[in-house]
Amino acid sequence: MLYTPSRVISDTNKKIASILRGDLRILKKIFAYVVESGGKRIRPLFMYYLARACGVERPEVIDLGALLEIVHAASLLHDDVIDGAEERRARPTGAKLFGNKEVVLGGDHLLASGLRHLNGMQNFAYMTIFTDAIQALSEAELLQMQQHFNLKTSRRQHERVVDGKTAALFRAAGALVSAMQGERDFYRTETANLGLALGRFFQERDDHLDYFDAARLKKKGLQDFVNGIVTYPLQLLLAEASRAELAEIHAEWEFARLQGKIRKQERILQLMDKYDIERRSVAELKKLQEQILAGLARLPEQRPREILSTEFQKILAVRSP
Amino acid sequence: MLYTPSRVISDTNKKIASILRGDLRILKKIFAYVVESGGKRIRPLFMYYLARACGVERPEVIDLGALLEIVHAASLLHDDVIDGAEERRARPTGAKLFGNKEVVLGGDHLLASGLRHLNGMQNFAYMTIFTDAIQALSEAELLQMQQHFNLKTSRRQHERVVDGKTAALFRAAGALVSAMQGERDFYRTETANLGLALGRFFQERDDHLDYFDAARLKKKGLQDFVNGIVTYPLQLLLAEASRAELAEIHAEWEFARLQGKIRKQERILQLMDKYDIERRSVAELKKLQEQILAGLARLPEQRPREILSTEFQKILAVRSP
Repeated sequence: MLYTPSRVISDTNKKIASILRGDLRILKKIFAYVVESGGKRIRPLFMYYLARACGVERPEVIDLGALLEIVHAASLLHDDVIDGAEERRARPTGAKLFGNKEVVLGGDHLLASGLRHLNGMQNFAYMTIFTDAIQALSEAELLQMQQHFNLKTSRRQHERVVDGKTAALFRAAGALVSAMQGERDFYRTETANLGLALGRFFQERDDHLDYFDAARLKKKGLQDFVNGIVTYPLQLLLAEASRAELAEIHAEWEFARLQGKIRKQERILQLMDKYDIERRSVAELKKLQEQILAGLARLPEQRPREILSTEFQKILAVRSP
Repeated sequence: MLYTPSRVISDTNKKIASILRGDLRILKKIFAYVVESGGKRIRPLFMYYLARACGVERPEVIDLGALLEIVHAASLLHDDVIDGAEERRARPTGAKLFGNKEVVLGGDHLLASGLRHLNGMQNFAYMTIFTDAIQALSEAELLQMQQHFNLKTSRRQHERVVDGKTAALFRAAGALVSAMQGERDFYRTETANLGLALGRFFQERDDHLDYFDAARLKKKGLQDFVNGIVTYPLQLLLAEASRAELAEIHAEWEFARLQGKIRKQERILQLMDKYDIERRSVAELKKLQEQILAGLARLPEQRPREILSTEFQKILAVRSP
């Protein structure tokens, strides 16, 4: 039987709740926050339908999807830890709700509970994949901090952050499916590469929308710029801008660094427009998209492959300028 | 061949350095900090000589000791995360040196690297013991925060913090030795109980010295009191003090909570003296000490058992008032 997406999500939520146990008040609050703010459960959905599309039908696929989500949640809790100086620009995150130390220790508890459950599945390949992913997540976040407000961040450095930060858990899902199929070299497989491409796409699309989604721009403007994160659209602009325009961008960047906000959003967008950055960024996304669609098309099982395509359709869609 | 303590320490340090790898500047700094501020490597020493005293002679004992130390270091990094409000009372910790987020992510990287290495040892019992310990460490720290500045903290609650915070990794060492001997119920063994008792002793002795070590008192006074942590000596005092004295203690406690420092250290110590708290606290420590010595005496192998006793002699010594 092939589950519907809503069934996958509800089974995943039950599994997460059964893995996360603890009698302390603060832990219960953090667990509830993690389960309720669950979001789209995109990792467990990918995990489940990818496995099924490869002909793998095992109950533990739900466990693995739940664990990907738990690691994701722990990573979000830890990424949201704030320094005194940063507080003013912080979103209403776990760290704001519960306190810095609480989310750090809560995140540790989540990770330990998840890995303990995983260990019960008695599969060394799974454990390798999960510990690799946790390592990649922390490393990418540290690299991003190292490049904080560094306009000279290279394309390669940005890609390394993307691959570690967002793509790691999708690649892990693909590697897990390969491991289930008995593949020993589980990172060098079509499914691991498909996961990697999908994870990259999500992050690059997010980075794109930060500059070019009208609805988002009205609400909160250029968040990556404000937060000192150099993404692909900004890199494209920096490569094209004239000397005078570069000086403007630098001044605005310095303002964001010192004030934690943006002053001349319109001007930055005007420059993006002048150099046709949106179209070029879309072209890049389309390339990744084609790679993903080709990968999906090669999966053997039709029905789950179709659901996978449908579920990710909305997300894969990129509005052309 | 039985290694000397200094050989155990240098092999442990090499092992730690080989497990912790990463090319980011900040990671290298954090790794160096962890290796160099190594302290007494008391967990690896206990791990090694306990195993040998039980007749277990395997190279992986050094790996396991190094991993206990890595988990300990990660836990210290995470415990030292500070909230804006707490900064004024913070010690010069990792968080101060590197920043909050840096130590959180650095700690995650340490944990992931350690668990990845452990997974390579292909032993599910080891992994269970380590994930249990990580869970216990985070839970105990959260419980301690929940009881922050709560003078009504019960003996039971304090013991739960001690067992999770300090005793967890010593108990883990004992359980690992049992697991190596093929014991399936590895927590219900003499070695696990010996580890637990030793871990409790270390913490209770620390708590004791916070009130009764003259040298320490001169340098930094009643740190647990200032930090709103109720330990055994204070519990003894609260049970004996008169109504008027309780009012004084409460007022000083409130001052510490609001100001982050102590005003009437002498008066608190005077009250401790009046009710003979030092002697009663020592009596409690002696009980644990006897339990540990009896446990050590039952270990089969003489030579490593003797080194274990010698190494822990200084630490086990408690000055009577």
